[in-house]
Amino acid sequence: MALIVQKYGGTSVKDSERIKAVAQRIIKTKEKGNQMVVVVSAPAGMTDDLIRLAHEICDTPPAREMDMLLATGEQRSIALLAMALCAQGHSAISFTGPQAGILTTKTHTKARILNIDPDRIKTELEKGNIVIVAGFQGATEDDAITTLDRGGSDTSAVAIAAGIKADVCEIYTDVDGVYTADPRIVKNPKKLDTISHDEMLEMASSGAKVLHSRAVEFAKKYDVPLYVLSSFNENPGTLVTKEVESMEDVVIRGVTHDKNQAKITIFGVPDKPGTAFKIFNKIGEAEINVDMIVQSIGKDDKATISFTVSKTDLRQALEIVKEVGKELGSSEVLADEKVAKVSIVGVGMRSHSGVAARMFQSLARENINIQMISTSEIKLSCIIDENDVERAVQAIHDEFNLSE
Amino acid sequence: MALIVQKYGGTSVKDSERIKAVAQRIIKTKEKGNQMVVVVSAPAGMTDDLIRLAHEICDTPPAREMDMLLATGEQRSIALLAMALCAQGHSAISFTGPQAGILTTKTHTKARILNIDPDRIKTELEKGNIVIVAGFQGATEDDAITTLDRGGSDTSAVAIAAGIKADVCEIYTDVDGVYTADPRIVKNPKKLDTISHDEMLEMASSGAKVLHSRAVEFAKKYDVPLYVLSSFNENPGTLVTKEVESMEDVVIRGVTHDKNQAKITIFGVPDKPGTAFKIFNKIGEAEINVDMIVQSIGKDDKATISFTVSKTDLRQALEIVKEVGKELGSSEVLADEKVAKVSIVGVGMRSHSGVAARMFQSLARENINIQMISTSEIKLSCIIDENDVERAVQAIHDEFNLSE
Repeated sequence: MALIVQKYGGTSVKDSERIKAVAQRIIKTKEKGNQMVVVVSAPAGMTDDLIRLAHEICDTPPAREMDMLLATGEQRSIALLAMALCAQGHSAISFTGPQAGILTTKTHTKARILNIDPDRIKTELEKGNIVIVAGFQGATEDDAITTLDRGGSDTSAVAIAAGIKADVCEIYTDVDGVYTADPRIVKNPKKLDTISHDEMLEMASSGAKVLHSRAVEFAKKYDVPLYVLSSFNENPGTLVTKEVESMEDVVIRGVTHDKNQAKITIFGVPDKPGTAFKIFNKIGEAEINVDMIVQSIGKDDKATISFTVSKTDLRQALEIVKEVGKELGSSEVLADEKVAKVSIVGVGMRSHSGVAARMFQSLARENINIQMISTSEIKLSCIIDENDVERAVQAIHDEFNLSE
Repeated sequence: MALIVQKYGGTSVKDSERIKAVAQRIIKTKEKGNQMVVVVSAPAGMTDDLIRLAHEICDTPPAREMDMLLATGEQRSIALLAMALCAQGHSAISFTGPQAGILTTKTHTKARILNIDPDRIKTELEKGNIVIVAGFQGATEDDAITTLDRGGSDTSAVAIAAGIKADVCEIYTDVDGVYTADPRIVKNPKKLDTISHDEMLEMASSGAKVLHSRAVEFAKKYDVPLYVLSSFNENPGTLVTKEVESMEDVVIRGVTHDKNQAKITIFGVPDKPGTAFKIFNKIGEAEINVDMIVQSIGKDDKATISFTVSKTDLRQALEIVKEVGKELGSSEVLADEKVAKVSIVGVGMRSHSGVAARMFQSLARENINIQMISTSEIKLSCIIDENDVERAVQAIHDEFNLSE
C-alpha cells in the first residue's frame, strides 16, 4: 500500500465525461490498495472566463477579490469529482485549499505556499476516504483566500505530497511525459524516462510548459518523487528525481524554446557602478521579471545593456527604461518583440566540453544569427529571431542526437 | 449615521450591468454616511445550472459535495460586487459565509443558522469598508461549507443584521414590497406600508414568495426592522415590524394563494388512537412536508383523512400512504393534484368576527367549491380546484375591500 498524490489539470476535468473518466482512473489506483489524495485544477477555460468577467466590471480588479472569484473554479472541480467518485460507489471528500490546510503568503494572485497542515487530509485518509483538494489556492494566516501563480496546481500537489509524506506525486497532463523537445516543433523527439530536478527546473524556466518551476523546487527541496503522466493513456511517464551520477553521461537532456520573449536595448549609458542597478531596480519595482541580461562596453566609457522580458511586459518595461535612460543620458533605447529564446539543458554540460560550440555551430549552419547569449551551469540560452525558432530547435536536436 | 444591511437577490446580480447598478445603489446609501453590509445571492440561474451539472455526474449527489458546489455561486457574486464598488472608488471587502462567521447546523443543503460571529464584519466596517457577504451559506463547527434552504439569502441577511445589531435590514427584490394579493392575479392590489411579523410569516407560508419564512422568524426573534424594496426603482417598500395595536383595525392584511399543492385522501381507516400517527410518521420519515390535514368521521368507526403536500412530493407520498393504507385496512386512497390553496391573513381576524363566513360567502357567490378548510389564529386557508384560483383570489380581495 502506498500513499499517492495525483494531480489532474483543467483539460482532465473540463466536462462531465472527462470528470467521470478521471474518477475511473483514480478508482483503479485506489483499488490496488493505495491511499489517495487528488489535486485538481479549475475546468479548462474557466479561469480565463472569470478573468474576462472581472475585467468587464473593473479595469484593475483588486487582487484579493480576484482570488475570491478565481477560487470558485477549483471548488467546482473538487465537488464534481467527489460526486463522480461517490456515483461509482467510492467514498470521497473534497476540501478547498484553505480547508486542506494550505497556508500561503499574502500576495494575492501570486501567493506562495508557506506551510501545509496535513491533519485534516490525514484524518480523512484514515477513514478510508479519497481526499480531493482544490489546487492553485490556499489561505493566509488571516483566513483570506489566495491563489498561487498560474500553473500553481502542480505546486499544490507537490506541497501536499511533501506535507503528508506521500510515496509519490503523479502529475497528469495532456502530454505523456517530458520530451527532449516540443513534439509540435521537432520531428523526432524522445520521451525521457528520468530527468533530474535541476534539469527539469531549467527546462521549465526556459519554456517547457509541462511542469511549473515552483512545483519542481518543492519536489527537490522535500525529495518528493514526481511523475509526469498523460491522463488520456497508460503510457509510462517521466520521473523527475534526484540527480544520479549516470545522468552526466548524457551530454544534454533537451532543447527548449520560448517565444514569449521581447528584447530591450539601451545604448550609451555610463560604464560605471550603479548604472545597471538604476535600470533594474525600477523594473523590479514594477514587478516585471527580467530574464536574460547582457552588458557590453562601447567606446568613450559608455556601455550598452540588453535584456529580455516577456512580450506582455514589454510596453511597460519600455516606458520605464526610456525614463531611466533620460536620467542616465542614454543615446538610444530600442525594443524588439520579434525574438525568441532557444536553450539546451543538461547536467552533462558540466563534464562535457565543447557543448556551447556545438550549439553555436548548428545555428550557424542554418544561418541563424545569435543576438544574445546567456549561460548557467547546466543551461545555455540564445536569443534569436522568432521566425528561426523551429529550424533552430530541430538543428540543435539533431546535432546532439537527442532522438536516440 | 446608521448601520444598514442590504440584501440583493440573484436577478440583481445576474450580469455585469446589473452588478454595476447595484454598486451604485449601495454607494448612494453609503455616501449618506451609513455603514453598509451587503448580502448577495448567486447570479440568477446559476444555482439551477450547477444542480443540473451535478446530476449529470451523479444521480444522488452527496449533500456535502452539493454544498461545496453551490457555494461557488454566491462566491462569484460577492467578488464581482466588491470589484464593482472598487471600480467606482469605494473600498469593499467580500466574505464567504464561513468567513463572515455564519455558523450553521450540519444538515447539508438545508442547514439552519445557529450563530453569527460578528467580529470580522465589524472590524472591516470600522475600517470604513463596505462589507459584502455571500448569502445562503455558512460553515459547520467542523469547518464544512453548508448551504441553507433555498431562499436562504434572506435569512443570512436578517441573521447578520441581528448579529451586528444593524439599524435596519433591507431586502431588495424584483417586486417593490408586499401586496394585498399577487399583482399578477388581482386587478387592483395595494402595496402594504407595514405588516406584522406574524402576518408576514403566514403570508410567506401560504404562498407569498416575497420573503423566506425563516428570515421573518429571525427578524421577529431579534426584533430586526425589515424592509422589502425593489432593486429596480426608488419606491418606498413594505416595513415588516412588530405588531402594534392599530394593526388589528384592519380586518385582513392580504390574500395569498399557492398552486403547488396536491391532495391525498385515505378512506375507511380505523377511527382510533394511533391511526394518524402511523400515516404521518412514515411521511415525515421521508422528509415530506405536510401542509393541511383534515380528519372526518365516517360510519362504522371508520375515518377519512385528507391532507396536502407539495405537487413535487405527491408521487412519493402516495406510495407511502398506499402502503400504510393496506396495513390499516383502508378502503381507498385517492390523489388529486389539480388543487390549490387560497388563504386570508391578518391579525385583525382575532378581533373581527364573521371573517370566515365572509370568505366562504365570496367563494360561494363565485360558485367555487371548498374541499378542505384549515384555520390558525390569524389565517384561514381553503383548498379549491386549481382552475378557480384567480377568480377566488379576486373575489376575496374585493369582499374585504383590500384595494382601498
